[in-house]
Amino acid sequence: MNAEIRDTLKPWQDSQRDLVNVAMGRKPADLVVRDGRWVNVHSGEIIDGTDLAVIDGRFAYCGPDAGHCIGEDTVVVDAGGRYLVPGLCDAHMHIESGMLTVTEFVRAVVPHGTTSMFVDPHEIANVLGLDGVRMMHDEALDMPVNVFVQMPSCVPSAPGLEHAGASLGPQEIAEAMAWPNIIGLGEVMNFPGVAANDQTMVGAIAATVGAGKTVGGHYASPDLGIPFHGYVAGGPEDDHEGTRAEDAIARVRQGMKAMLRLGSAWYDVAEQIKAVTEHGIDPRNVILCTDDCHSGTLVHEGHMDRVVRHAIAQGLNPVTAIQMATLNTAQHFRLERELGSITPGRRADFLIVSNLADLAIDEVWARGVKMAVDGKLAGEIAPYDYPAAARNTVRLGKGLSADDFVVEAPVNEGAVDVRVIGVIENQAPTRALEATLHVKGGVVQMDLQNDVCQIALVERHRGTGAVTNAFVSGFGYAGDCAMASTVAHDSHHMIVVGTNHDDMAKAANVLGEVGGGVVMVSKGEVLALVELPIAGLMSDERAETVAAKAERLGEAMRQMGCTLNNAYMQHSLLALVVIPELRISDVGLVDVRTFEKVDVFV
Amino acid sequence: MNAEIRDTLKPWQDSQRDLVNVAMGRKPADLVVRDGRWVNVHSGEIIDGTDLAVIDGRFAYCGPDAGHCIGEDTVVVDAGGRYLVPGLCDAHMHIESGMLTVTEFVRAVVPHGTTSMFVDPHEIANVLGLDGVRMMHDEALDMPVNVFVQMPSCVPSAPGLEHAGASLGPQEIAEAMAWPNIIGLGEVMNFPGVAANDQTMVGAIAATVGAGKTVGGHYASPDLGIPFHGYVAGGPEDDHEGTRAEDAIARVRQGMKAMLRLGSAWYDVAEQIKAVTEHGIDPRNVILCTDDCHSGTLVHEGHMDRVVRHAIAQGLNPVTAIQMATLNTAQHFRLERELGSITPGRRADFLIVSNLADLAIDEVWARGVKMAVDGKLAGEIAPYDYPAAARNTVRLGKGLSADDFVVEAPVNEGAVDVRVIGVIENQAPTRALEATLHVKGGVVQMDLQNDVCQIALVERHRGTGAVTNAFVSGFGYAGDCAMASTVAHDSHHMIVVGTNHDDMAKAANVLGEVGGGVVMVSKGEVLALVELPIAGLMSDERAETVAAKAERLGEAMRQMGCTLNNAYMQHSLLALVVIPELRISDVGLVDVRTFEKVDVFV
Repeated sequence: MNAEIRDTLKPWQDSQRDLVNVAMGRKPADLVVRDGRWVNVHSGEIIDGTDLAVIDGRFAYCGPDAGHCIGEDTVVVDAGGRYLVPGLCDAHMHIESGMLTVTEFVRAVVPHGTTSMFVDPHEIANVLGLDGVRMMHDEALDMPVNVFVQMPSCVPSAPGLEHAGASLGPQEIAEAMAWPNIIGLGEVMNFPGVAANDQTMVGAIAATVGAGKTVGGHYASPDLGIPFHGYVAGGPEDDHEGTRAEDAIARVRQGMKAMLRLGSAWYDVAEQIKAVTEHGIDPRNVILCTDDCHSGTLVHEGHMDRVVRHAIAQGLNPVTAIQMATLNTAQHFRLERELGSITPGRRADFLIVSNLADLAIDEVWARGVKMAVDGKLAGEIAPYDYPAAARNTVRLGKGLSADDFVVEAPVNEGAVDVRVIGVIENQAPTRALEATLHVKGGVVQMDLQNDVCQIALVERHRGTGAVTNAFVSGFGYAGDCAMASTVAHDSHHMIVVGTNHDDMAKAANVLGEVGGGVVMVSKGEVLALVELPIAGLMSDERAETVAAKAERLGEAMRQMGCTLNNAYMQHSLLALVVIPELRISDVGLVDVRTFEKVDVFV
Repeated sequence: MNAEIRDTLKPWQDSQRDLVNVAMGRKPADLVVRDGRWVNVHSGEIIDGTDLAVIDGRFAYCGPDAGHCIGEDTVVVDAGGRYLVPGLCDAHMHIESGMLTVTEFVRAVVPHGTTSMFVDPHEIANVLGLDGVRMMHDEALDMPVNVFVQMPSCVPSAPGLEHAGASLGPQEIAEAMAWPNIIGLGEVMNFPGVAANDQTMVGAIAATVGAGKTVGGHYASPDLGIPFHGYVAGGPEDDHEGTRAEDAIARVRQGMKAMLRLGSAWYDVAEQIKAVTEHGIDPRNVILCTDDCHSGTLVHEGHMDRVVRHAIAQGLNPVTAIQMATLNTAQHFRLERELGSITPGRRADFLIVSNLADLAIDEVWARGVKMAVDGKLAGEIAPYDYPAAARNTVRLGKGLSADDFVVEAPVNEGAVDVRVIGVIENQAPTRALEATLHVKGGVVQMDLQNDVCQIALVERHRGTGAVTNAFVSGFGYAGDCAMASTVAHDSHHMIVVGTNHDDMAKAANVLGEVGGGVVMVSKGEVLALVELPIAGLMSDERAETVAAKAERLGEAMRQMGCTLNNAYMQHSLLALVVIPELRISDVGLVDVRTFEKVDVFV
């Protein structure tokens, strides 16, 4: 607990008198910023010669000449004619995608101008349930920037087709709505369930609306006909799954917010922003977000600054682009009084920017405290200790051996026809392929020449020792190797892909020993390892360290013959039994076109 | 209690499943509107060929071809290519200004397209306190349209300078915030009090913010310097007192909503809308309202349709003007899920409009029920019975006689210098004048040749029998007459203006007998009378009847020599001890430049 930092932000009511006193010049401000170009997201103007006065971490005065707010102890900062931009908001994102704790994620993104995040701890919820959500909720509360939590809505993602580490129902969701830092419901991914009035979806949404909070959406289908309208009628208020301009337009017309996403592997802004730049849609209902960022992206490319910069590069007016990452987001989450603009009463989160079109951020201030200068963290953020329960989540039940990965054939010798998960370059869906494989001594043989190797899902939540075996194609592994990962969306068991049974067992056992992570093994040797001891999903190291380890992992995959663009991500999505066509889960091989379990043999 | 109507609108959660079922075509809609031109206030578009499906008084489907939503019992309406416009919202208004009950006000304005009102029952609160607010709150809940109540914030308006019928403090305000229909805090008029951290203002605003509701503002000063910034820092979120484009711009820049007002006597839209049309301010933070409408305006000119039409006539894009009376208002009051647009889940409040530029409204629908056709009420609204406590509020304590209005001079014969309240044509402020008047038999004489007659404030809340006498100039009364009114802002005692003591007594006694209202008496005869038995402020008759009676009153005033434009309004504002320069209250004559009581003799 970082009580000191948490205490720096009082509720507005507790600062109300002092805000007035500072504005009136009766009490000196904590901080005065002089001579800025105020990027005013309410009026849409840029106003030269603006001063800001701050007390208790909130703006008290924004206007010309705040000389009357300056006292002996007031810190005075000269903006020297540079732009004053509200701190950027990421409207929907998963911390876990960065393989970082909340604290380390914040350290990584604050220098990029992100001062408010709306995070959906969907991954940890699949491992640790409500307890896991609460852990990240509490860590978030301790941050010196604004990290609001969206309550995960679909845990497990595919009831009946998988067993996650936990499940969340309407009762848990209603309970969480009363927590101080829960801002709404996380993306409602079960869109057919919403349109079908699935009991759990109806209850989760009703609890959120009843609490006066925002219902996050996720409509991952190009069908804008009746199923889309049924989903909208069910209550979701935003959606970040659109990819085409018509998707953004359809969502805005229905009263939703179109969230445009630029993540590490999502490039959905350029097409959809045309809804505004070409079709003239009112931009007030468009919001920017990242959804998923790997630590490497944070370290090398940026975060919300990258998204805003990209939106401006698509021809959007810079102030409009900034509105989409500030005021629009704040309004959507009913936080307009608290943040999203540089105006009295709001949290004093702002950027000093020397060039608006490039969004060149010189300084980042949050709650009136200088947090970053020239892309480097300036403010201190104390480390956060996760409880032991979060660090002991890889339960294999036994040491795994090569035998656990043997696929026994129905014949002793000859050939069999098997189902094969076909990875598609640059796409999340897979293909349901078939292959004929040799059988030797009753054991099905892989066919590396035709890029068919094995995939296994190792149960890791309940220590059952169960292993589901099947075949996969597309990774291009040529040599002896196995890669294992406890990041295995969405139920987060362990996915092992390998070209021989010994390396598969070794890889699985390594992750059992370190408490989770991602590992590449070749001939019994560990080529690369990213330890993720927290829930098997997150490191407690710095973003730079994690990014470096992840890069070594990528190199190891390439070294073993894999040429996929997002090889690790493809690996970690193979158990996502809600995206067609063929996936693996602890239940077995799943045909996601029919939502049915199918046999490995055709 | 009109339980049947109240029950027609369930909370969204109770209709959630059926909204989805209708959108999906699994259940027939109650109502389907076909072939409209959808005025989409979210996207800013007009979309041809749109169908709407409604169930439980809410939109379930908005898009092309709602054929799948039609069943045997579905009412199908052909819009025939006409515009579908969201029902209009009046963001700030006082029902009492129409001298009507909530029910009669609703009957009068629904045919003009107003389906949502945000009403501040400030006047009844000054007479009946929290009980009065509750009465209008409960009546509002029974309406078939949306009438939300803003809790009056400044009762009395000028503590220490007047005694109203009641007073409301932070405790009452906190109590009211828990009522189902309280939407926020009514205009915080004591703007110097906010900037001075007056205890009552701080408490009222804090209670509202704590309840997550909207704080209404009222900054009635042209000074946009430090006092304005101090007011903003204190928490008000909107303001309707601006008159110049720079006022609107200043408010929007500070994160407030600029409310532009077109009432019966307020013409503040034309100048301020230039903030958008000429200065390019983002229109999303601009909202339209009426503040005060007399029943005559409602009957002869309209309500929010008049305001929107006027805004369009100033050069505003019609869709932008409609946004200012729909979506912008709904967002401001945190009601975006409930109303303000034609989109799924929202209350099915919409207008069928044949011409957008003129806003020619053919039909008005509220919650899926046809409420008006061609400017005539179509739906039935049951009459509402006010409790006896609301009908017995004029307590004079005694029959008044001519002697009560005698101003005794400090000399027996000769002349005295007196202070005179000087009415200014077309303005709310008065002048602090002086006059030399003759004295006969120890009694100060009026000087009708120089337009100086008497004004009296008769205490009417506690039956003390007290009468404050003074002098007034500007009405131009020539003959024997007296006009009395229990509408006497803001404390609503009784103001009597007359040219002789007998008629003044007669006028006061007539109002005592009928329980309040406005009357003109000449030589003992009643020339015109508007009975206002509810709190001495409101009639329970129809708007047409009240308007006709008010017109006869105006004629009677002109007949007696008064040529002022808004003669009745000027009369009723003479006790408003918050607007300079000279006013009358139950405490005495008040110099509002210094906020001090002054003697009638100089």
